[in-house]
Amino acid sequence: MKIPAEKTAIVLIEPQNDFLTPGGTMYQYIADQLKERNVIQNLVNLLDGARGKCKIFYCPFQAFKPGFPELKPGGPGTDGLRGIEMEMKADWGTGAWLDGTPGPEIIDPLTPKDGDVIIRGKLTLDAFHSTAINYLLRANEIEYVAVVGFHTNWCVESTARSAYDNGFRVIVIGDCTATDTEREQKYAEEVIFPRIGKVMNHEEFLSSLV
Amino acid sequence: MKIPAEKTAIVLIEPQNDFLTPGGTMYQYIADQLKERNVIQNLVNLLDGARGKCKIFYCPFQAFKPGFPELKPGGPGTDGLRGIEMEMKADWGTGAWLDGTPGPEIIDPLTPKDGDVIIRGKLTLDAFHSTAINYLLRANEIEYVAVVGFHTNWCVESTARSAYDNGFRVIVIGDCTATDTEREQKYAEEVIFPRIGKVMNHEEFLSSLV
Amino acid sequence: MKIPAEKTAIVLIEPQNDFLTPGGTMYQYIADQLKERNVIQNLVNLLDGARGKCKIFYCPFQAFKPGFPELKPGGPGTDGLRGIEMEMKADWGTGAWLDGTPGPEIIDPLTPKDGDVIIRGKLTLDAFHSTAINYLLRANEIEYVAVVGFHTNWCVESTARSAYDNGFRVIVIGDCTATDTEREQKYAEEVIFPRIGKVMNHEEFLSSLV
Amino acid sequence: MKIPAEKTAIVLIEPQNDFLTPGGTMYQYIADQLKERNVIQNLVNLLDGARGKCKIFYCPFQAFKPGFPELKPGGPGTDGLRGIEMEMKADWGTGAWLDGTPGPEIIDPLTPKDGDVIIRGKLTLDAFHSTAINYLLRANEIEYVAVVGFHTNWCVESTARSAYDNGFRVIVIGDCTATDTEREQKYAEEVIFPRIGKVMNHEEFLSSLV
Repeated sequence: MKIPAEKTAIVLIEPQNDFLTPGGTMYQYIADQLKERNVIQNLVNLLDGARGKCKIFYCPFQAFKPGFPELKPGGPGTDGLRGIEMEMKADWGTGAWLDGTPGPEIIDPLTPKDGDVIIRGKLTLDAFHSTAINYLLRANEIEYVAVVGFHTNWCVESTARSAYDNGFRVIVIGDCTATDTEREQKYAEEVIFPRIGKVMNHEEFLSSLV
Repeated sequence: MKIPAEKTAIVLIEPQNDFLTPGGTMYQYIADQLKERNVIQNLVNLLDGARGKCKIFYCPFQAFKPGFPELKPGGPGTDGLRGIEMEMKADWGTGAWLDGTPGPEIIDPLTPKDGDVIIRGKLTLDAFHSTAINYLLRANEIEYVAVVGFHTNWCVESTARSAYDNGFRVIVIGDCTATDTEREQKYAEEVIFPRIGKVMNHEEFLSSLV
Repeated sequence: MKIPAEKTAIVLIEPQNDFLTPGGTMYQYIADQLKERNVIQNLVNLLDGARGKCKIFYCPFQAFKPGFPELKPGGPGTDGLRGIEMEMKADWGTGAWLDGTPGPEIIDPLTPKDGDVIIRGKLTLDAFHSTAINYLLRANEIEYVAVVGFHTNWCVESTARSAYDNGFRVIVIGDCTATDTEREQKYAEEVIFPRIGKVMNHEEFLSSLV
Repeated sequence: MKIPAEKTAIVLIEPQNDFLTPGGTMYQYIADQLKERNVIQNLVNLLDGARGKCKIFYCPFQAFKPGFPELKPGGPGTDGLRGIEMEMKADWGTGAWLDGTPGPEIIDPLTPKDGDVIIRGKLTLDAFHSTAINYLLRANEIEYVAVVGFHTNWCVESTARSAYDNGFRVIVIGDCTATDTEREQKYAEEVIFPRIGKVMNHEEFLSSLV
């Protein structure tokens, strides 16, 4: 497969401390998978190899203010995953993605560099529902979207499904994604992603760019 | 759990011959699951029990014209599942969802009745990306969306994920959904749906309506 | 200006009897503008000249069932223009876009031809909010969207604004659009469209295609 | 008219220096209208009167990095208004919404207060296309959306049109909006807003809240 680099974007979902750094609210659940599959280093290699060829878009989750004034208590925004995250404990307090804590900061090894674009405002699983991602991809005449980051079967998958439904050609770079369990990682890579796009590892992706 | 019927909609995804009737392009893959889990009868019971209480929205997949003039050959619309479906064989010819064939017709046991609403135009996995579903749900002041239909881990799941991201309270009525394999059905019911909403069977749903 | 025909789509908004034919609910308001500005003939000329070069997408408004079961009485779907239309009188009864009446049918001179695509399901001002238009444009690798039809400052403008926000290059073919008054037509052509795209007449458009 | 405060949100579009403060890129064009119609003071009065009753959402335009790495030179993101703004001169340099300049900062008199929510990431005319506004409104069980800010016929109008299309009940508080010319302000208030919602001034709005 040849991938035209000029028309390709890497979309990096939520490379933040709450997921990826000891002490973060959700680190303990994903830690084993991160380590076993060498995911942070794979991401560093991917971005280092792709910068200057592909456009790189960061999609961090947007911080909440202390007390979560953005979400009505008991409202639908406190159902499901989002509600669970509001109660989770980090070393720096209770609640994920809290403004003023290290939780929502991008981890050091993945610090954005010149030319990378940070897309602001993500509050939903699917970046297309809460950010300018569609606009920015099209403003850059992107046709191929390579999704990476966290978690494989949540925000990565919701965003990849939407990219497919928005008429992009989808790539998921499997070794640059992670989630809490092997069952979830395998299911997403084996069942879902091959039917909405191509699954490859970061070395295959980099060597396919033309 | 009490579910206020006035604010609840059932969204029925793609109850059509191409999936559900012998001779349909994709029937052979889902047939065992449909039978083992008694899904069509469960759906009939659900709709019979809910009509007059909840609003019922049908979301059939939109038919293509012969030759698929809607999709550019080799374009991104022919990647993934959609492209595979264009090559599939039905008893009545090649290609799923073909206008003029029985494929896109709603199956007899699930024929819409007075007051049911048929949402037209679905061409994507996620009904929110290609139909008026968001507008119609809101025009009916719906807060609870109960998703049912086919396939559990494709269009049902994409639509349920988007309903969650659009601020609805999501219910998936598991025994009124089906997909090709037990692995996929179980994964969606055990891993995904409980974290974006409630999973229940149709009897629990009907007895929760108030 | 050179417009690459292969990457260009004409999007024709609501060329239907309720707007354009004597006896239609809203015909009386637009009739003078249609005639003075020769709009139907311009549209015929545009489509005849463009077919085989550009992709043509029809976006008719979707019919409602008698009694409007799709919209909750008193709900937000009955506010504003939509509510007004529900009370309007046609020669064939009360209410615009009623299934089973001539209202939602496409007018004879603009009957779709082979290869044209009809996008189903439009229920909102902006086609992007209720149809597969974004998916279909991208599935056809479209970059330039030429919007035409009715009404200039309502559905045409809402759709053109959204096309701009979705990263398409927007063209409005002014003499192939109409609305109820000269004030509205001029305002849209002079103030709005030039700042989100190019305004041209159908002859300029056809001669710009390469 | 009675407006239930608990279900009502004020959405304040782009209250930022580039529009509203001498030296800002676009201030000179809107300055007369701001002064004649007393818009900033009206907004201060509106927010002071509504805080603690309605939810208040700020929608500032998102800053670009110097050099606009977010938008491909010559790409569709540089067409129309956005492209014009990239060339405009402020006292602090060339280009609107530039990160590190006063341009994208919210003006002092409208500084957000405790409980107000700032929605991040707006890069399109219509806030629904680039932010979490739909999610946040629904997470707060909002039914009535009162749109205010700048410019009346651009981002305010695009957002109000989309709110209507997303099934919200729309209010535009006319004396809390402004644009460059009286023609544009009057047209939007007289022709567009009354057909997608209610137009009122800030005193009427505040006295209607129950």
